[in-house]
Amino acid sequence: MNQELCNCLVAQSGGPTAAINASLAGVIKACRESGKIGTVYGAINGIQGVLSRNIVDINTLIGTSDENIEILKISPAMYLGSCRYKLESLETAINVLIPEYERIDDYTCIFNILNEYGIKYFFYIGGNDSMDTVKKLGAYGKSINSPIRIIGIPKTIDNDLPITDHTPGYGSAARYIATSMLEMAYDTSIYSTKSVLVVEIMGRNAGWLTAASALARTEFSDAPHLIYLPERNFSDAQFLSDLREKMKDRDHVIIAVSEGIHYEDGTYVSSAGAVKDQFGHTMLNGAGRYLAKLVSSKLGCKVRSVELNILQRCASHMSSLTDIEESFELGKKGVEAAISGKSELMSVIKRVPTKDGSYKVSYDLVDVSKVANLEKKVPDEWINEAGNDITNEFLEYARPLIQGEPAIEYKNGLPVYLTIRHLGV
Amino acid sequence: MNQELCNCLVAQSGGPTAAINASLAGVIKACRESGKIGTVYGAINGIQGVLSRNIVDINTLIGTSDENIEILKISPAMYLGSCRYKLESLETAINVLIPEYERIDDYTCIFNILNEYGIKYFFYIGGNDSMDTVKKLGAYGKSINSPIRIIGIPKTIDNDLPITDHTPGYGSAARYIATSMLEMAYDTSIYSTKSVLVVEIMGRNAGWLTAASALARTEFSDAPHLIYLPERNFSDAQFLSDLREKMKDRDHVIIAVSEGIHYEDGTYVSSAGAVKDQFGHTMLNGAGRYLAKLVSSKLGCKVRSVELNILQRCASHMSSLTDIEESFELGKKGVEAAISGKSELMSVIKRVPTKDGSYKVSYDLVDVSKVANLEKKVPDEWINEAGNDITNEFLEYARPLIQGEPAIEYKNGLPVYLTIRHLGV
Repeated sequence: MNQELCNCLVAQSGGPTAAINASLAGVIKACRESGKIGTVYGAINGIQGVLSRNIVDINTLIGTSDENIEILKISPAMYLGSCRYKLESLETAINVLIPEYERIDDYTCIFNILNEYGIKYFFYIGGNDSMDTVKKLGAYGKSINSPIRIIGIPKTIDNDLPITDHTPGYGSAARYIATSMLEMAYDTSIYSTKSVLVVEIMGRNAGWLTAASALARTEFSDAPHLIYLPERNFSDAQFLSDLREKMKDRDHVIIAVSEGIHYEDGTYVSSAGAVKDQFGHTMLNGAGRYLAKLVSSKLGCKVRSVELNILQRCASHMSSLTDIEESFELGKKGVEAAISGKSELMSVIKRVPTKDGSYKVSYDLVDVSKVANLEKKVPDEWINEAGNDITNEFLEYARPLIQGEPAIEYKNGLPVYLTIRHLGV
Repeated sequence: MNQELCNCLVAQSGGPTAAINASLAGVIKACRESGKIGTVYGAINGIQGVLSRNIVDINTLIGTSDENIEILKISPAMYLGSCRYKLESLETAINVLIPEYERIDDYTCIFNILNEYGIKYFFYIGGNDSMDTVKKLGAYGKSINSPIRIIGIPKTIDNDLPITDHTPGYGSAARYIATSMLEMAYDTSIYSTKSVLVVEIMGRNAGWLTAASALARTEFSDAPHLIYLPERNFSDAQFLSDLREKMKDRDHVIIAVSEGIHYEDGTYVSSAGAVKDQFGHTMLNGAGRYLAKLVSSKLGCKVRSVELNILQRCASHMSSLTDIEESFELGKKGVEAAISGKSELMSVIKRVPTKDGSYKVSYDLVDVSKVANLEKKVPDEWINEAGNDITNEFLEYARPLIQGEPAIEYKNGLPVYLTIRHLGV
């Protein structure tokens, strides 16, 4: 253990993405190159790993060469593991510091451990909830005059963080969704009988991922033909009417729906038609399955539903090089900010206008409190008036984010990813 | 239309694979190179396209250069479309030739059209049912002394055709399944809470695809931890016992199951716990969903089910180069056989023993009647005694089939595949 006051700690939190390890790689790389940091520690399973002292020297895990950094960049899920742990509110925590209490609160515990490991910089890579952790730890640190700098590095496939032009992880998920949609369009086209395919895509409150399915459209294939986002209220009757209209022109209709589509009264479509299963539990259809049944029942044609499920967030073999590189840079920017003495910030991506309209970004830092617990939805003007498709503005925004293929090495036919054995799998 | 007696016709039938277009490319390439064939015609939507005269000159679709042949090789689904059309039995058909009948039977109709287009060679690329079509047409042709040579070219992701060492299309599906399984293993490992993931894989009667999930195992990841194939009877009680045992050693258990697993009495697990939905239709869970509910109900831990669904058969971006090249060769061999005067045969892959144990194949031809309507299952000795895993023999058999990455061109972040617009999509 390095006892000098120049060590750093990095951890990951929330749901996985194909690019969150690229941000981790960026943090490690920048720490190594800075010449100002002794040991780079990683906490296993996010802030829970800090609380339980499950802290490892990154060099002992991945070695000191750049080779593993490159593999880490394109490895799926979270190399250091994750957690979904919400810190108690700062007010409560400070209250429980009253000497009468035997127990030690999370904040005291975390800062004691950080000090014990000689941590000066703490980098937390995560989404909305993780930024809440950064915000609370930052505020607590300030209240006790701690010199520890705390920086958030964003990630989420959902693309629902405010301020940043887009979120790292979104581009890779979008590329997987668009490619899968294109391939399913080919698959669906082969029979001459009329058919409907409903594809359910992740996104509870924001439709960014479902909208990305429209990136599948090429000069030869125009699927998906209908797109429904949670930003607009859903109606079974309108849906059936939209579908009937589409089926006049074509034999095969492909529909993309967000898992979170809901009716005007707020009820999720996924819970429509729920019945009790044989175990007595409520058996949700899911939005896609419900709509497939609705179509089968009302239109009587061949229908299938597909859930892209967790592959949306972990199919690194189809990640976007743009996304991987940007995520890496965001990790590096976080380290630079911390070393220059900044704290309670999150690194963000800004899109830079160019004369020729080409895609260019720069990086910036924002107060983490401007991000924590907030949500960015697909703008209303990027959804068509009928609420069953997206507009060209969305495509222009999203297309640059899915460009480029990372160089992946294959061994025995499989992509080579960095080991997860230390997670006890 | 070329009226010389040296034209050929090619068509595709059955379910799609990532490699069936490679066989089509092989047929086209060999026909062009033979110097003995005038026009290469394609029937749209299989034998139905012949019956309805939906026949096109391949050159007008894809041009005469080799460039599109290369793109065709790696394009998913079926470039010429498909059908699921079973010819009436030859006996019935011949009976209906009695002059009293006004209607013309399928056989007379097909041979009239083949003759009209000057077809001497007919290549039918498909699975089990398609080989039944080849067999029937061959027998009918013989009965009327037709000079038309009819050759079957195999395909099926299911790997369930007899005689051939493996089927074209299987290796690509296996590679997609193994890669997805590996990525989901990473995804599943990130939380410290115990979890179970059930992955449902295609295969109604044969477990080849589900067995392929074991190819995901690397030195760093040993998922899937339990594998259930339809070759053995399934038992809920034994499954729960297997699972409890696995959960003693590990936090995350990943289970691969064939869609066709069934109980001793023959009932499919997919139909267990079925209830009526709000439309009054029987609502099947599917094997994966049912098992997820069973686990949730009996073990109470976090559980998720994933269906790989149609992406197994159309995810060309993860196809196996070995599979693509072999499928291409099978198409070429079919053409060579027909030109040399052979008929009613299907091209097959033979594995050639080598001194160093390296993978090598040769190609052969077999009487199509030895293949049609027959099914090859996973050998009993390749399933472990407990019936919850496969053996090393299977891995040694299957691993060579998923080797190699086809060169795929990307445009706007998406793989470039040959157009399907002529299918009216």
